Amino acid sequence: MRDVVEIGLGKTAQRGYHLDDVAIVPSRRTRDVDDVSTAWQLDAYPFGIPCVGHPSDATMSPASAVRLGQLGGLGVLNVEGLWTRYEDPTKILEELAALPEEAPATRRLQEVYAEPIRPELITERVRQLREGGGTVAVRVSPQHTLALAPVILDAGVDILVIQGTIVSAEHVSTTDEPLNLKEFIADLDLPVIAGGCTDYKTALHLMRTGAAGVIVGLGGDEWSTTESVLGIRVPMATAIADAAAARRDYLDETGGRYVHLIADGDLRTSGDIAKALGCGADAVMLGEPLSLCEEAPAGGAWWHPAASHPKLPRGAFGTADQPLGSMEKLLYGPADEPDGQLNLFGGLRRAMAKCGYRDLKEFQKVGLVLDR
Amino acid sequence: MRDVVEIGLGKTAQRGYHLDDVAIVPSRRTRDVDDVSTAWQLDAYPFGIPCVGHPSDATMSPASAVRLGQLGGLGVLNVEGLWTRYEDPTKILEELAALPEEAPATRRLQEVYAEPIRPELITERVRQLREGGGTVAVRVSPQHTLALAPVILDAGVDILVIQGTIVSAEHVSTTDEPLNLKEFIADLDLPVIAGGCTDYKTALHLMRTGAAGVIVGLGGDEWSTTESVLGIRVPMATAIADAAAARRDYLDETGGRYVHLIADGDLRTSGDIAKALGCGADAVMLGEPLSLCEEAPAGGAWWHPAASHPKLPRGAFGTADQPLGSMEKLLYGPADEPDGQLNLFGGLRRAMAKCGYRDLKEFQKVGLVLDR
Amino acid sequence: MRDVVEIGLGKTAQRGYHLDDVAIVPSRRTRDVDDVSTAWQLDAYPFGIPCVGHPSDATMSPASAVRLGQLGGLGVLNVEGLWTRYEDPTKILEELAALPEEAPATRRLQEVYAEPIRPELITERVRQLREGGGTVAVRVSPQHTLALAPVILDAGVDILVIQGTIVSAEHVSTTDEPLNLKEFIADLDLPVIAGGCTDYKTALHLMRTGAAGVIVGLGGDEWSTTESVLGIRVPMATAIADAAAARRDYLDETGGRYVHLIADGDLRTSGDIAKALGCGADAVMLGEPLSLCEEAPAGGAWWHPAASHPKLPRGAFGTADQPLGSMEKLLYGPADEPDGQLNLFGGLRRAMAKCGYRDLKEFQKVGLVLDR
Amino acid sequence: MRDVVEIGLGKTAQRGYHLDDVAIVPSRRTRDVDDVSTAWQLDAYPFGIPCVGHPSDATMSPASAVRLGQLGGLGVLNVEGLWTRYEDPTKILEELAALPEEAPATRRLQEVYAEPIRPELITERVRQLREGGGTVAVRVSPQHTLALAPVILDAGVDILVIQGTIVSAEHVSTTDEPLNLKEFIADLDLPVIAGGCTDYKTALHLMRTGAAGVIVGLGGDEWSTTESVLGIRVPMATAIADAAAARRDYLDETGGRYVHLIADGDLRTSGDIAKALGCGADAVMLGEPLSLCEEAPAGGAWWHPAASHPKLPRGAFGTADQPLGSMEKLLYGPADEPDGQLNLFGGLRRAMAKCGYRDLKEFQKVGLVLDR
Repeated sequence: MRDVVEIGLGKTAQRGYHLDDVAIVPSRRTRDVDDVSTAWQLDAYPFGIPCVGHPSDATMSPASAVRLGQLGGLGVLNVEGLWTRYEDPTKILEELAALPEEAPATRRLQEVYAEPIRPELITERVRQLREGGGTVAVRVSPQHTLALAPVILDAGVDILVIQGTIVSAEHVSTTDEPLNLKEFIADLDLPVIAGGCTDYKTALHLMRTGAAGVIVGLGGDEWSTTESVLGIRVPMATAIADAAAARRDYLDETGGRYVHLIADGDLRTSGDIAKALGCGADAVMLGEPLSLCEEAPAGGAWWHPAASHPKLPRGAFGTADQPLGSMEKLLYGPADEPDGQLNLFGGLRRAMAKCGYRDLKEFQKVGLVLDR
Repeated sequence: MRDVVEIGLGKTAQRGYHLDDVAIVPSRRTRDVDDVSTAWQLDAYPFGIPCVGHPSDATMSPASAVRLGQLGGLGVLNVEGLWTRYEDPTKILEELAALPEEAPATRRLQEVYAEPIRPELITERVRQLREGGGTVAVRVSPQHTLALAPVILDAGVDILVIQGTIVSAEHVSTTDEPLNLKEFIADLDLPVIAGGCTDYKTALHLMRTGAAGVIVGLGGDEWSTTESVLGIRVPMATAIADAAAARRDYLDETGGRYVHLIADGDLRTSGDIAKALGCGADAVMLGEPLSLCEEAPAGGAWWHPAASHPKLPRGAFGTADQPLGSMEKLLYGPADEPDGQLNLFGGLRRAMAKCGYRDLKEFQKVGLVLDR
Repeated sequence: MRDVVEIGLGKTAQRGYHLDDVAIVPSRRTRDVDDVSTAWQLDAYPFGIPCVGHPSDATMSPASAVRLGQLGGLGVLNVEGLWTRYEDPTKILEELAALPEEAPATRRLQEVYAEPIRPELITERVRQLREGGGTVAVRVSPQHTLALAPVILDAGVDILVIQGTIVSAEHVSTTDEPLNLKEFIADLDLPVIAGGCTDYKTALHLMRTGAAGVIVGLGGDEWSTTESVLGIRVPMATAIADAAAARRDYLDETGGRYVHLIADGDLRTSGDIAKALGCGADAVMLGEPLSLCEEAPAGGAWWHPAASHPKLPRGAFGTADQPLGSMEKLLYGPADEPDGQLNLFGGLRRAMAKCGYRDLKEFQKVGLVLDR
Repeated sequence: MRDVVEIGLGKTAQRGYHLDDVAIVPSRRTRDVDDVSTAWQLDAYPFGIPCVGHPSDATMSPASAVRLGQLGGLGVLNVEGLWTRYEDPTKILEELAALPEEAPATRRLQEVYAEPIRPELITERVRQLREGGGTVAVRVSPQHTLALAPVILDAGVDILVIQGTIVSAEHVSTTDEPLNLKEFIADLDLPVIAGGCTDYKTALHLMRTGAAGVIVGLGGDEWSTTESVLGIRVPMATAIADAAAARRDYLDETGGRYVHLIADGDLRTSGDIAKALGCGADAVMLGEPLSLCEEAPAGGAWWHPAASHPKLPRGAFGTADQPLGSMEKLLYGPADEPDGQLNLFGGLRRAMAKCGYRDLKEFQKVGLVLDR
């Protein structure tokens, strides 16, 4: 049974589990790896792999977002990132890529992100994405959704991602007109992905706003400092499983609306991806792992969008020596290192085969062991 | 349910949890950060932030205590520290600040604290504090309270902090006249903060002495050696929650006396502060984090008052390369490093906003997850 | 009671334990070490020690397999390894032994294993094993069993080991004719060892195929990357105990067929071996520990057979400075280092003596403590 | 409740706890440190501190054993150590003290301990101990007790310590006449301390042999390799508490025979000592901590007696840069380092004072918290 622990007299805490705490248990038949499908579909958009690009400038440029689409995933560009603040941010990205270890990187991020967003660049970037072919998706923060949505929608995107550290269905403000997600989504005729969230209740409320997909997690990784700054830490295995329960309950409540769960956090290897899907996710959002491919815009550097916050940055700036290989090699191999960072979806496919499952939806039922 | 574990046949132990074991779970609405208040009030004294300076000479001088008051917190000077043993301890503080890593620092601390306390310097230091404006508070050990109280009270303080490793409501001695806290406090007409304590029972008994505030914890941090020396280790999340239960029971027992809990231990980042308050504390006592600001008296060095004990020192001597910034920057930002050591109360405020709470008392109900 | 933990709403995981999590508890009489027997018998083949060589080219060559047999264990040669791909692989083994730390070792492994298997070399290697005297055993993967079995059986082996990452009793394929283990074994008149498996159900199903021995575990060790790549991690104490339950149930179901459990994973020291047997294993399969003896074919280098997979390698390449001693010294001592890597079965024997047990079957009942 | 965990189907393990897992909780009155007594008495022999010297040659020579007695503890000389193999072992001890880190230390230990024991030296060493004044105690292994006891008893000791890795009340042998502890002790008219043991049952059986004291634990410390070699690891908090339950049951069974528990393992600091006594021990056996005093025979080197075993050594050879201070300073302070290695029994006394206890027997009831 799940523990509710009394940490002190009258004060309880839910026990939560990380992806590292669990592992997959093969316990039935095995299956040929070639008979396994990793296909994923969100609304009208089919994908070869359940892979969403994390909308950090370290991972997603117009070019790399298009490339991810060509390879079967969903690229997402951040319309509050460098590409909508600068006509041509490549110089800045090169500078960041070359930042020495001891540099005050956070300060430099704060500086380059202090430049205002230029709406006409949003239009331009969406045009570039559309020209690339494939599904067009951009990310906007909940704070700027009302202001930027008209430009974005005019530019013509396929999927809108509304993503902040925590996105709730009910934001309270005494000063600004807050975003009412439910009304906002009801007025749109394109699918919205919203999040992050970390628990059953928030996930369910986000589903009730009409979102097609809900992001579970806060993009936690080894560079994350959300816990040090805010005291918030997300045990992803539990967060995903709880959100999957919300998906099930919402499916029942609506008589059939299936909302997709996109896991965002603690995903570094193909093994992590397999565990996240085994816990109930429909897809994964990959940030730092994709920052290590040759097509990554910042040459192996990685930072979370929140790392450039002007007053309370969250997330350290990481650098890598050199790319691990092309995006194709990262996603599909062949791997020539055994550490799980290459052939990410070939690894997933083989894990599914060893457990005897044919598709992603079936694989959500895989057995788990808890050993930490 | 809270575990009582049988560690061996017939020998039980209560299970306890550290702040690191728990994390905050946002699970309701979100709120504008500008609508959140971090105000705290102890007796008649209002504060902008729930922050008490740890009465170590590494953190609190007359000047830095005054500065903390100006910035909205409560400065506390140790009347058994260097400032009441030396006319001018700045030379000594400079020497300690410059102590090389390999120096036998504990021995040097023992030497400089061997100098006797001079009562006239207590009077002088209190005068300096009072001149600085703001609330005047000093710390005295329970052993020396009876001897030093007359001088302190004559000098005119607003709040008296009686703090030792463990302060119990009943100290037994066959040789000296022990301090009877209850009688002592009853005779005073100023609020007393007393502690540390680590469990429900001691906290409740301290409340019954008439204290306005109770210190929970022993000031544990990474330099602490209380466990190695005494076998005592305090799981702060549990200690705070248990003391909060004592506060609740005492409130009921007295028909309305609310005693404030000041958490003292394992607090290094804004995230830790948020967790301590989420566990039920009313305020936090900050030692080592404040030793890292430019105004700190010992230039980044840190030692706990018990580290200079002549026979059984507890607590190592720590040094820092250079200050992280002004006290204002530490408390209110803006942060230019993402590690949770800057903008301590801006971080708290944002954590409250992400969980949808307006004030500190409400925030004590925040949801927690336990994942270690 | 064993925990089934709800990691999230409606999603459960079995709690599992590693060998490191448990330890042996002496709790009865003690016994002279000379009165203890480590004899093991599989089908008609008696062994002085319950030791099976891991069929990696780093451990088992025709010569070292023969030597292990002479010393009382069971050598197993991989018929899909270098010895059946090359007339004389010694140059390659020397090259691998001398590979510098920074070399792209996985890539080199992939290259040398890209050479096709030559059936006539299988015949030749089995002949060499048979000439060495002792029990002849070879390993084949389930994928190649149907193709290679005729050659192997013609060559004349005593025991056939069918080993893959996960071997299930029911492999599903839409393209190839899958191996039906039950039918395959029924047609043989020699004992088969099959595995790995990691849970009760798969172990029981493997027993029902008619296997004489079942391999429990996936050969996990500190160089293993199965978790990073596939998300699979095996808590060996639980895996062994669960398989022992399957052995017990299968014994009952068949009215007396006793299937041997061979533990393969997390075995580095004599203490680990004692724990694995104490959890219920009948024998252990030793890989990396045997790669450290003077007779090891690759001079102290170690790699798991899966580490050379062309597309999804699993397992890092390890190297050692110099051999720890002869195979005899590793197995029987005397040890001149106290770290448990020498005198592996003398250590087992002494552990059995300190707990008062006379033979391996009795020792499976030894008491365990769980303390992590 | 204490857990019995099913680690796999039908295989259980008792959950055990280490001293590191628990900590002392002050939760009542406090007391003046000068009102606290650390007196201990075993049979007719009174001691100022509950401290037994570990009979390793690294800790106990005739001179250091006498010195420990003068300082209030119980020195114990190993009659199977260097002092009974060599007329004058000081040269060897000096050599060992100067052994470089990279030396094959275990091999050298095996060599110097290969020298046979000379009975006349036993007589001589006991004479030296007796001349030193204080209580005379020597250690013999259970294997050699029958052979060496006549010499030892003739020489005239006060207390006999029969200590091996595991001492059971019933040793089984088909070749030698095994030691029957019960008969052996019944024939003696001096108190015997016997052990180690690690569980309730063995402790109870040892008590029934008539032993005055039982050693709990195997002398585990950071140099210990018992787990790697034998798979045995002792969670000391549980082992002590279980043995204390045996002491209680034996007291009842005999209508009043109180057998003392001497904890031997995981004791490095004053905090560890306080925890061991708080778990129910009557005294502690100190090995490595005493090897760090100026009077230690091997200049800071440390090895467990089992580390010189000719075939299966257990325990690494440790060295220290320089002594921490005199034995008196280690036992009674004053400490000038805060790490708990100095003023070992002053630290214990202060821990007792902070918890309000007057004597050791009372302190066994102290509250514990479990937090790992």
